[in-house]
Amino acid sequence: MGENNCLPPRSVLCLFDVDGTLTPAREKIDPQLDVFFQSLRSKVKIGVVGGSDYSKIAEQLGNGDEVIHKFDYVFAENGTVQYKDGKLIFKQAIQNQLGEELLQDLINFCLSYMGLIKLPKKRGTFIEFRNGMLNISPIGRSCTLEERIEFSEIDKREKIREKFVAALQKEFAGKGLRFTKGGLISFDVFPEGWDKRLCLDILEGEGLEAIYFFGNETTPGGNDYEIFNDPRTTGFTVYSPEDTARLCRELFMVPTVNLDHSGHSNGCL
Amino acid sequence: MGENNCLPPRSVLCLFDVDGTLTPAREKIDPQLDVFFQSLRSKVKIGVVGGSDYSKIAEQLGNGDEVIHKFDYVFAENGTVQYKDGKLIFKQAIQNQLGEELLQDLINFCLSYMGLIKLPKKRGTFIEFRNGMLNISPIGRSCTLEERIEFSEIDKREKIREKFVAALQKEFAGKGLRFTKGGLISFDVFPEGWDKRLCLDILEGEGLEAIYFFGNETTPGGNDYEIFNDPRTTGFTVYSPEDTARLCRELFMVPTVNLDHSGHSNGCL
Ligand SMILES: [Mg+2]
Ligand SMILES: [Mg+2]
Ligand SMILES: [Mg+2]
Ligand SMILES: [Mg+2]
Repeated sequence: MGENNCLPPRSVLCLFDVDGTLTPAREKIDPQLDVFFQSLRSKVKIGVVGGSDYSKIAEQLGNGDEVIHKFDYVFAENGTVQYKDGKLIFKQAIQNQLGEELLQDLINFCLSYMGLIKLPKKRGTFIEFRNGMLNISPIGRSCTLEERIEFSEIDKREKIREKFVAALQKEFAGKGLRFTKGGLISFDVFPEGWDKRLCLDILEGEGLEAIYFFGNETTPGGNDYEIFNDPRTTGFTVYSPEDTARLCRELFMVPTVNLDHSGHSNGCL
Repeated sequence: MGENNCLPPRSVLCLFDVDGTLTPAREKIDPQLDVFFQSLRSKVKIGVVGGSDYSKIAEQLGNGDEVIHKFDYVFAENGTVQYKDGKLIFKQAIQNQLGEELLQDLINFCLSYMGLIKLPKKRGTFIEFRNGMLNISPIGRSCTLEERIEFSEIDKREKIREKFVAALQKEFAGKGLRFTKGGLISFDVFPEGWDKRLCLDILEGEGLEAIYFFGNETTPGGNDYEIFNDPRTTGFTVYSPEDTARLCRELFMVPTVNLDHSGHSNGCL
């Protein structure tokens, strides 16, 4: 809504991971931190790149679709869904990358494998189809919180997901697939290379002087590892949302001037 | 919101099917018919009983949660989810009826069966777990409209759903399960007897003089058949939402008095 017309030209982008970097995992952003990160927009462009889908990120960082107006760039599902200046600009599709044949072999393998798993309880939505990945859950995503915890206890003992992933890795070796456990009841399958670096391709054409990336899982195996180490970014490892804010304050806020963090000073809201 | 305080005591309930009776299938109610059916509330109680889940019925009959304030009773998923006077009063659960053992045998059979089906395209959400039923879709519910139509063409030729249901009927004969095809890409599995009559149990205790049921699929095999023929209801077969309104006008509106259908006359709204 023309918000950006009120902002000065900004040649640096601060790109933030979401869970553990801007918000506690899966939760909403702290309102004071929210105000602070918005105040950064008088100095730099800001963006987020998260593994969750758009609706989850939107819920964590605002109400309704606020998030796409609060951040210059919003990258959901590791950058397979891309918003810029409040508009959807690109959506990747896993079937275009894998092809229908391999995708179906993968789905059918998972269906057959899960048809043989016995658990105390099974619910529904065993395979969720997302833009950039399949999410596979042996109990089914529609379980209750109680059922979710029950499954995760069994999974700890019996390594259900670990064995399932090992079977997939063996069956689909050399097919360009990657697998990561996420949360308590599922794991993700996605094409090799479809990590957070996906968002850097579009950012390369944006005429930015620098991309500062902030993430909390920047070591090998962490979901920020690849983008953190990519030569196109300058990476910062953070330990909490408060830590991210502290770091940004040091980097971008002139320490001797009492800035109005609400952003009112430039006549905008 | 106290709306009901403005309404006279009413001892007759008009209970409506949704698709084809109050609205075109899966679509929103016509605004004029909406006003008309609300005007009925000065004479009778009104309720709906639909096969869809609550969110679909709510979307068809109002905005947000309006529907539970616009109808005295709202029964979703064939009455397994029950609202009265704007409040959720009861939710049935299929696992309580079938037991976890049978439910899981059923789910695993479906997973294994679908693991062997080859289609041009497969997506996600092959088994959706609802309160009163499982919804099974060989292509996966998360397909696009185009993919949905493509599947339905193949299904017409190759009878994929028909063969699937036949296999289930054979495997689970005598286990108290019912199967019905719904829409283009899926079928439902639910416990025997879990048809729309489920809502009559609670209505029996409501001190009503009569329950008038209106539905468009009242012949054998139709989803209104059982409740239409139940001795606890007086059944009417309708052919369209307009037909339903015409019938109600004849039954409840005094023809020689020019009634204010907006309901303003009783000092409410
Ligand atoms: Mg993180
Ligand atoms: Mg780097
Ligand atoms: Mg109907
Ligand atoms: Mg009857």
